Amino acid sequence: MDYQSLNPVPHLTTALPLEVLQTHLLAHQAEIERWLRLQWQDSPAPFYASVDLRNAGFKLAPVDTNLFPAGFNNLDPAMMPLCVQALQSAIEQLDVGARGVLLIPENHTRNLYYLESLATLYDILQKAGYEVHIGSMLPDLDTPQTITLPSKRQLLLEPLIREKHCLSVKNFVPCLVLLNNDLSSGRPPILEDIQQEIIPPLHLGWSSRLKSSHFTYYSQVAKEFSKQVDIDSWLIDPLFRNCGEINFMKKEGYECLADNVNVLLNAIQRKYTEYDLPHKPFVIIKADAGSYGMGVMTIHSVDDIFAFNRKQRTRMSKTKEGKSIRKIILQEGVYTFETLGKLKAVAEPVVYMIDHFVVGGFYRVHTKRGVNENLNAPGMHFEPLPFVNSCITPDLCQAANAYPNRFYAYGVVARLALLAAARELHHEY
Amino acid sequence: MDYQSLNPVPHLTTALPLEVLQTHLLAHQAEIERWLRLQWQDSPAPFYASVDLRNAGFKLAPVDTNLFPAGFNNLDPAMMPLCVQALQSAIEQLDVGARGVLLIPENHTRNLYYLESLATLYDILQKAGYEVHIGSMLPDLDTPQTITLPSKRQLLLEPLIREKHCLSVKNFVPCLVLLNNDLSSGRPPILEDIQQEIIPPLHLGWSSRLKSSHFTYYSQVAKEFSKQVDIDSWLIDPLFRNCGEINFMKKEGYECLADNVNVLLNAIQRKYTEYDLPHKPFVIIKADAGSYGMGVMTIHSVDDIFAFNRKQRTRMSKTKEGKSIRKIILQEGVYTFETLGKLKAVAEPVVYMIDHFVVGGFYRVHTKRGVNENLNAPGMHFEPLPFVNSCITPDLCQAANAYPNRFYAYGVVARLALLAAARELHHEY
Repeated sequence: MDYQSLNPVPHLTTALPLEVLQTHLLAHQAEIERWLRLQWQDSPAPFYASVDLRNAGFKLAPVDTNLFPAGFNNLDPAMMPLCVQALQSAIEQLDVGARGVLLIPENHTRNLYYLESLATLYDILQKAGYEVHIGSMLPDLDTPQTITLPSKRQLLLEPLIREKHCLSVKNFVPCLVLLNNDLSSGRPPILEDIQQEIIPPLHLGWSSRLKSSHFTYYSQVAKEFSKQVDIDSWLIDPLFRNCGEINFMKKEGYECLADNVNVLLNAIQRKYTEYDLPHKPFVIIKADAGSYGMGVMTIHSVDDIFAFNRKQRTRMSKTKEGKSIRKIILQEGVYTFETLGKLKAVAEPVVYMIDHFVVGGFYRVHTKRGVNENLNAPGMHFEPLPFVNSCITPDLCQAANAYPNRFYAYGVVARLALLAAARELHHEY
Repeated sequence: MDYQSLNPVPHLTTALPLEVLQTHLLAHQAEIERWLRLQWQDSPAPFYASVDLRNAGFKLAPVDTNLFPAGFNNLDPAMMPLCVQALQSAIEQLDVGARGVLLIPENHTRNLYYLESLATLYDILQKAGYEVHIGSMLPDLDTPQTITLPSKRQLLLEPLIREKHCLSVKNFVPCLVLLNNDLSSGRPPILEDIQQEIIPPLHLGWSSRLKSSHFTYYSQVAKEFSKQVDIDSWLIDPLFRNCGEINFMKKEGYECLADNVNVLLNAIQRKYTEYDLPHKPFVIIKADAGSYGMGVMTIHSVDDIFAFNRKQRTRMSKTKEGKSIRKIILQEGVYTFETLGKLKAVAEPVVYMIDHFVVGGFYRVHTKRGVNENLNAPGMHFEPLPFVNSCITPDLCQAANAYPNRFYAYGVVARLALLAAARELHHEY
């Protein structure tokens, strides 16, 4: 099958032999799947997740793991049966005998992209055979509100009701509460001490979670996995460091930041030298509890920090819903050498999972950003990954860099990030 | 999406309002899925199955349930990820920590259709991340034999080895033995008292199983389901009767057969009268333990029996691998009013399931057979069902007779037959 003709697939451009990692993962497929199976037995996967990857050819690494994923509307509609099946399997394992599911979304009613994703998630739940209602925490929502989306779909937002320890909307008491709100603004009291099962649990929200904690788990997962399949774990693991308190507006904490940037740039350069890579190291700094691509910057040298202008400092001070940034993570910048179309727009894969199943993905594409920049920014668009016959079904008869096989590697690395989140979920709390 | 343009979809021709059943099932979707979920908790589904359906518009019923399905090669390749995911889920639930799977196939090495199906099943297992070997029971296979298929795929058949209570092939001891041999010729001693898990268990083979027993369970399932969704169970349940010993060659047992045919034709006529259906009742007689469409005949009146010629009687005397037919089942003939293409070839849907998940299907099409005949016969061909966005993902916004919604009904009725098999599996032995 000619994937290029079905979907636009980014062209992977690099001067380096890039098949090494993919070939290696493919050759160890049965071993990898078995290892993952055993891991899920110890640490059941979170309910759902999306993982942002960066593919530099020589290196393929996760850079963000979202446990309250949006963007379901960007998946190829052909992936819906896979989503439905994985969701049925995931909910069955909860053993709550759920007939009804209450979906608690983000509070942004004007972000139509988010609402389209919510509508798709609603759709998947409904097709899995559940009665679904959307219980909104919008403070000024007194009566049910119908929103008509650009896709012509309609969403009914109903005011969330709490009575004693039970969540409901009018005339509907669910067995299961599915959270699609990352709790960036904190844990809402209305969701505390609820007798129904809330999935994912509140402590996985960005009010408690830190990227640096996730990547500490990830680093350990990457080490174990790499030992298993005999690779250098750096090939799948972005180096990182974190700082204490920082205040960009007041320029407080800059020395610590500068020191850490230096340490990290040097460490990356050592690996680049080891592998004879001609690229210039860079560092990404981001809010340790940030989301939606907010509070993210690229740094090439310590000088960049001291040269931040007011606009840049303001941007690094607040994340979603105006929450202040005090903690940041410094992460090895991973080049993305995937470009799409004639414009050579930079692309990075995003992989979606429900339970431990890869159910789809897409490329986040940005025509105005470089190979060393965060692509999760206004102006981005999405191209569904042609995952069919791909991410979970590698074709051992094709060359390792054939599209299906590149996607197998994506599915593996994304599941390693999912496993790190699973350990976060089960060990820390 | 215009399904017609993607895949040929049979045209459903009937003078009767045919949407009633489909509309009804769609309207009760959440209830149906919930009911099925509870059923699987009591009676876990068999490992895999294919169900032959007949769609008369006014009636949609299973007519055969195969627990050692072949025909995987006829599924749309786009369904592979769904198959892989369901298989991973099914094997994980067995909790055998399986890394390696030994697949035990049928012994026909010259049936290339079967071998293509075997190659696809092998492929699904491999893509799910298992090391797979094919352990053949062919009596004259002393060394591994490679078969190159018309699809250019290669199959390696290795001689099955038994040492004490352990099955293996040379240098490979599996945790799990997957049987894809329906045991029509009996339970091979080499498979008895094995310490590894054999899935499906031997007692589900045609050496022990009877269609009449399956349809007894099915009838009960259909009654319970019909009560749940408030329909006449006849709309999904083919009437049947069975006879004692019969010997077509010696014309023994004909009186009993004739009596039963009469009773059944009258019962069908009463239902046709009740629903004001203009059709002529007919009965299908088939080997109670038969498979591969062998030993099947259409009967319109008692006279047909006594008019059997020698060729017909010979055909009703032996089934697969020359096994004698002594027991038969008489089943209400269900018209198929689905026709495909300009030739108006008669078509019947076949639905595939792994665990309790619908993973695909196809239409069995025959240009030389009538609406009241068995289509599982030489000359048949297959058209993949465009199940994507369909069988398990009905679209409530479309008309009930839209393709996706017709397929939802198929998925429901096929799963009812699967549930009957699950009860056979768990309650009888």
